[in-house]
Amino acid sequence: MSKAEFLPNRPAITAPALGEPFLLTPGPLTTSLATKQAMLRDWGSWDGDFNQVTAEIRQGLLVMAGISDDSYCCVPLQGSGTFAVEAAMATAIARDGKALVLMNGAYGKRAGQILDYLGRAHVDLDMGDYLPPEPEKVAEMLDADPEITDVFLVHCETSSGILNPLKELAEVIKSRGKGLIVDAMSSFGAVPLTVDQIPFDVMVSSANKCIEGIPGFGFVIIRRTLLEQSKGRAHSLSLDLFEQWQYMERTGQWRFTPPTHSVVAFRKALEQHQQEGGVAGREARYTNNRNTLVAGMRALGFKTLLEDQWLSPIIITFFSPEHPNFEFKRFYDELKARQFVIYPGKLTIAESFRIGCIGQIDERIVLQLLRAIADALDVMGVDQSSNT
Amino acid sequence: MSKAEFLPNRPAITAPALGEPFLLTPGPLTTSLATKQAMLRDWGSWDGDFNQVTAEIRQGLLVMAGISDDSYCCVPLQGSGTFAVEAAMATAIARDGKALVLMNGAYGKRAGQILDYLGRAHVDLDMGDYLPPEPEKVAEMLDADPEITDVFLVHCETSSGILNPLKELAEVIKSRGKGLIVDAMSSFGAVPLTVDQIPFDVMVSSANKCIEGIPGFGFVIIRRTLLEQSKGRAHSLSLDLFEQWQYMERTGQWRFTPPTHSVVAFRKALEQHQQEGGVAGREARYTNNRNTLVAGMRALGFKTLLEDQWLSPIIITFFSPEHPNFEFKRFYDELKARQFVIYPGKLTIAESFRIGCIGQIDERIVLQLLRAIADALDVMGVDQSSNT
Repeated sequence: MSKAEFLPNRPAITAPALGEPFLLTPGPLTTSLATKQAMLRDWGSWDGDFNQVTAEIRQGLLVMAGISDDSYCCVPLQGSGTFAVEAAMATAIARDGKALVLMNGAYGKRAGQILDYLGRAHVDLDMGDYLPPEPEKVAEMLDADPEITDVFLVHCETSSGILNPLKELAEVIKSRGKGLIVDAMSSFGAVPLTVDQIPFDVMVSSANKCIEGIPGFGFVIIRRTLLEQSKGRAHSLSLDLFEQWQYMERTGQWRFTPPTHSVVAFRKALEQHQQEGGVAGREARYTNNRNTLVAGMRALGFKTLLEDQWLSPIIITFFSPEHPNFEFKRFYDELKARQFVIYPGKLTIAESFRIGCIGQIDERIVLQLLRAIADALDVMGVDQSSNT
Repeated sequence: MSKAEFLPNRPAITAPALGEPFLLTPGPLTTSLATKQAMLRDWGSWDGDFNQVTAEIRQGLLVMAGISDDSYCCVPLQGSGTFAVEAAMATAIARDGKALVLMNGAYGKRAGQILDYLGRAHVDLDMGDYLPPEPEKVAEMLDADPEITDVFLVHCETSSGILNPLKELAEVIKSRGKGLIVDAMSSFGAVPLTVDQIPFDVMVSSANKCIEGIPGFGFVIIRRTLLEQSKGRAHSLSLDLFEQWQYMERTGQWRFTPPTHSVVAFRKALEQHQQEGGVAGREARYTNNRNTLVAGMRALGFKTLLEDQWLSPIIITFFSPEHPNFEFKRFYDELKARQFVIYPGKLTIAESFRIGCIGQIDERIVLQLLRAIADALDVMGVDQSSNT
């Protein structure tokens, strides 16, 4: 079934403004013109019209997570996604709690760092650069250490692009009665994540990822009973999620100045997300992007870091060619000159780079990218024909 | 001298889009169309083009504060202005330090709250709703308590609109060798504040105030030696100003995802700030706005909370009429229907409301506002003729 059949009403992807590159990065990403145009007016952050926007996005996000009652709350927070992760951890993990942090990349490691700042006890399962945490190993660690109260994990670790086995891990974690904190920063909105399938306690994401908004805020979806218990737990006034929630419930307003334009753009982005068929629609387009990208890159002689089963529809890590003429900086500049911005790699084991599948791109644009990559290799004198 | 003579090249103020109200609030405020249009493209936060924007705004802000050497650093931080204030206090005040907090409104009180979260000792000089902290009293407190290491004060306290006597206070504080932390959130860019006049150690402001940018980040201008000493002092990963600075110096990038569109809009806003004649030009326009507003409101029978000498060119508090037909909510709605959004009051002593003088407004628009206010009073049946 072609995507056109699956998504008859999908809005057309339009090229960015003249000279502006497509961002094939894990966010900020290429957004639609309509989303950006929503920022062409100013909003009073105290005014009822703006409060209405805030209420709509909070509600829309709960619906996207499959929540139809008041058992969970959605609390947006100013700043980058990391600010929301930090606020969520400070809220969800009791001061005398102990977290198990599953790590296989930069974002898992960052969670460990946050806990160090917070003075919360934690043990880590560090799988290195790209291996998935095994549910059996997690079960073993939880059974061996009853002091562990919560488990933190990253759904899609963009360091490698791996989509971690969230469902299997959630089963192990919840069957042992532990709190489940999911960093779904780069997956929410494009990979199904609903409470009926993944009974998380806390889920964190941000505006500028798969919902294709503008950076400026993150959001936390959190079990109401957990949030209610968390008064006085926060280490920071600005990052106090309980107070942010209370104030928003009481007044409809953000506690401190919100990124008004980013919030209004996000409402527009949510509208387009729905028009595209919600999470299923977006997942279909991104998956198609990924499949086109991976097949095309392999045809050009590139190899993916991960086996197919672990490839997310979000971002893919490719090994850099071993050819002596290949230099990432030059490759980056050649692609940028052809209107594509890619992302450097983050592996310690080998030279690599990453290409995102998310944002306002479709397979037509991926095919253009593949031609640009072939051109760039040609100009650089990198011949990979022996690899194909 | 008319403003037109003083500022021959000032860009024209244009009305907002159809139906969009002017924001006569202390920020977010009405910005220029050019500033908003700068947000009509997406930027890779890792890319060199964006790093260039970040470098330009950091440099532009240092110049605005009168800094021409490397004795101070400018560190922008994601989130609202309060996030930057919290980060600055956590950085500037040693863990075993003790702060004197000068309070005469919500923002001074908030600083005290931040110190409570941080676990830093503090004593407060609370002047209530609107009285200025007297330099003599501050001197007395500093002399009586040698444990005080730092003094925090708000330059323009928007709760009442008072412009606190910063120069006199700074002299008292610096002559005693104490650290001076200035919250210049709503004054920087429109009231002169340079290190030669006010030898601050830390100054905090944000994008969406007198420089007329879009909300999304704040910034801290801090003495380099102080910043260098602060490693490991922060309570929060996200708000760790030292690490934010180090990463930015090393890579040119923000440590975590920046509000890219807000940052790029801010560069555009800085350009316009300069075209208007810098701080002096902006101060002249805002002062003219204030003078037109106050004179017109007094002619309509309104009274200002503050005596003339304390009126800032930022925001003015007016007492609500005592007439039985006056109701703030109705007044607000009547003005909004006439395309003006005003701000509620924050006094505990009396009913009041506030009107901002900042953002893309000039005296022509203030005169329109005054006509709208006269109309609204008329429609509400509020007769103040006995007051005039």
